[in-house]
Amino acid sequence: MLSIFSEKHLLHGGLMEPASDHWIPGAESPERANNVLAAIRRVGFGDVVPPDEFDDTHILAVHDPDYVRFLESAWDEWLASGEQGSVARPYAFVTDGMRGAHTENIYGKLGRYAFDIFAPIVAGSWQAIRSAADVAMTGAQHIVHGESSAFAICRPPGHHASADLAGGYCYLNNCAIAAQSMIASGRSKVAILDVDYHHGNGTQSIFYDRDDVLTISLHADPAFEYPYYLGYADERGAGDGLGYNRNYPLARGTRWASYCDALMDALQRIQNYSPDAVVCALGLDTYAMDPTTDFAIQSADYSEMGKLVGSLDAPVLSVLEGGYDIDSIGMNTVNFLAGLRSAKT
Amino acid sequence: MLSIFSEKHLLHGGLMEPASDHWIPGAESPERANNVLAAIRRVGFGDVVPPDEFDDTHILAVHDPDYVRFLESAWDEWLASGEQGSVARPYAFVTDGMRGAHTENIYGKLGRYAFDIFAPIVAGSWQAIRSAADVAMTGAQHIVHGESSAFAICRPPGHHASADLAGGYCYLNNCAIAAQSMIASGRSKVAILDVDYHHGNGTQSIFYDRDDVLTISLHADPAFEYPYYLGYADERGAGDGLGYNRNYPLARGTRWASYCDALMDALQRIQNYSPDAVVCALGLDTYAMDPTTDFAIQSADYSEMGKLVGSLDAPVLSVLEGGYDIDSIGMNTVNFLAGLRSAKT
Repeated sequence: MLSIFSEKHLLHGGLMEPASDHWIPGAESPERANNVLAAIRRVGFGDVVPPDEFDDTHILAVHDPDYVRFLESAWDEWLASGEQGSVARPYAFVTDGMRGAHTENIYGKLGRYAFDIFAPIVAGSWQAIRSAADVAMTGAQHIVHGESSAFAICRPPGHHASADLAGGYCYLNNCAIAAQSMIASGRSKVAILDVDYHHGNGTQSIFYDRDDVLTISLHADPAFEYPYYLGYADERGAGDGLGYNRNYPLARGTRWASYCDALMDALQRIQNYSPDAVVCALGLDTYAMDPTTDFAIQSADYSEMGKLVGSLDAPVLSVLEGGYDIDSIGMNTVNFLAGLRSAKT
Repeated sequence: MLSIFSEKHLLHGGLMEPASDHWIPGAESPERANNVLAAIRRVGFGDVVPPDEFDDTHILAVHDPDYVRFLESAWDEWLASGEQGSVARPYAFVTDGMRGAHTENIYGKLGRYAFDIFAPIVAGSWQAIRSAADVAMTGAQHIVHGESSAFAICRPPGHHASADLAGGYCYLNNCAIAAQSMIASGRSKVAILDVDYHHGNGTQSIFYDRDDVLTISLHADPAFEYPYYLGYADERGAGDGLGYNRNYPLARGTRWASYCDALMDALQRIQNYSPDAVVCALGLDTYAMDPTTDFAIQSADYSEMGKLVGSLDAPVLSVLEGGYDIDSIGMNTVNFLAGLRSAKT
């Protein structure tokens, strides 16, 4: 299986996060993608290639152009604003009844284009963000050109990003962009299966009123886990998209047996949809030892998970999302991909 | 002029704020109210009394009961959650299309009831918040009982707090609660005049569809200043409240001459409304030396401002809002109040 990787992800790093009254190292670190790459190379899993460069067409088909332009210019605007500090991070947000469109203040714009404080901008962020979208689109084109599987080592991740809001370490929605590029290449139906520990709220919202992209997410119940405000079972899509979104909110401590039950149900729904291609939002933060989460999936379980996803009668592009146990993320990723590949051959 | 002050404000303090990549001392500090009190005593401005204790009736008439209950229980919920740290502070917020009502997570609830990160909860916050509302209601009752003026030394401030969202150092909207208590005491029309440097977005939103409380705010244009997302000139009210909200967004560096022009216009609107009472949201952060803002009002100007506000043909309850130049906040407050008193006698 071909993997796509861009060194530009390194330009987005060195981040700390505020937590109550102290700073903690940002969980979404460059080591994550580096360790995934190292594991792929260590086991000789397959070729790793840099991304092709794509124009913005598919990005602008799923994201607000003003949002994309802001992400691109945010760091320069931060510098021009005279604000002090090495990180541009929002603090106020557009909630009920507020109007985001009118402010020219850098903090106002940062907040207008985010739903939380966890999508900060540093000097190299845009290069990393834009390159991750190229990584995803390159993977999508491999699928379009006939490969049965590919793996896009995207960083920063994407599934929390909506059409015009960053959050949860996400800026451009790599999976949505990949799916959109497949649609633009003539595929009539694409399914996105999100197995990250956290609900793929951005992906859901982008395709909520569309029936050409089925969105399915298995995740920790937002009643107790981030992103809190989306990911409930009654969110089924709207308009043309009604029936084309499905959420599986799962309990604290979910183990493989019950996860597998939900996954089998999700895969049956995907099979019933008969997609031309599948995009798997591959988060490894369901892992039992992940320091930030509360599921109990074991390393060997990822092989089974990959086999099940690979059993779908459609090519599968896997796209890296979350996963914060640095020591295991590489092994767990390779276990998933190896399982998927074994089912495809 | 009688002033009302509660020592319980001291229970809400010691706060630091994240700013880009570092912490800064919270600008909304206990020293603010202490210095205002000290200035009043130093010049012998008048009696200072503790607040009476009121039940929640008027609070619940302007705030969502679930929000009030959450503010009261938030610290205990924080402790029970097992989250680490001495401050409960939200990081994710309910933006477009999100659903705030369903999560039980403490961070989810903190964000569901806030629009920014600047309304943190510490162990003593609720006692201070609730006591500030009593301070405001005590002031309101003095007006209802025939006083021509009174001063509520409220801390924390209130004008950014909406019916169910904290933000900008504000939790319960002291001015809104005071106005509501006047209405409940038989006053048919109350005007709220907000002279804080920042738009009183919470006060505006609480009364946006009502014609019995006229809300007027002079403030830095949200195009360049917090709260960014409300406070524009075209926000005039809705439904029964259409025409009963007025904003005066002012330019960077505004000096007294142009401020006075806007204030005279605002006062004429209030006079035309013929209110039974006026609540003045008294922020001193329009001061030229305020470290957080960008107007150029001088200390002597506050005397003039007070005289103009005192010239209204209605009793005036002044309620402390912002103001972050610790050394001058007392003097500027007394200047305003002395000017107001001179116009009332």
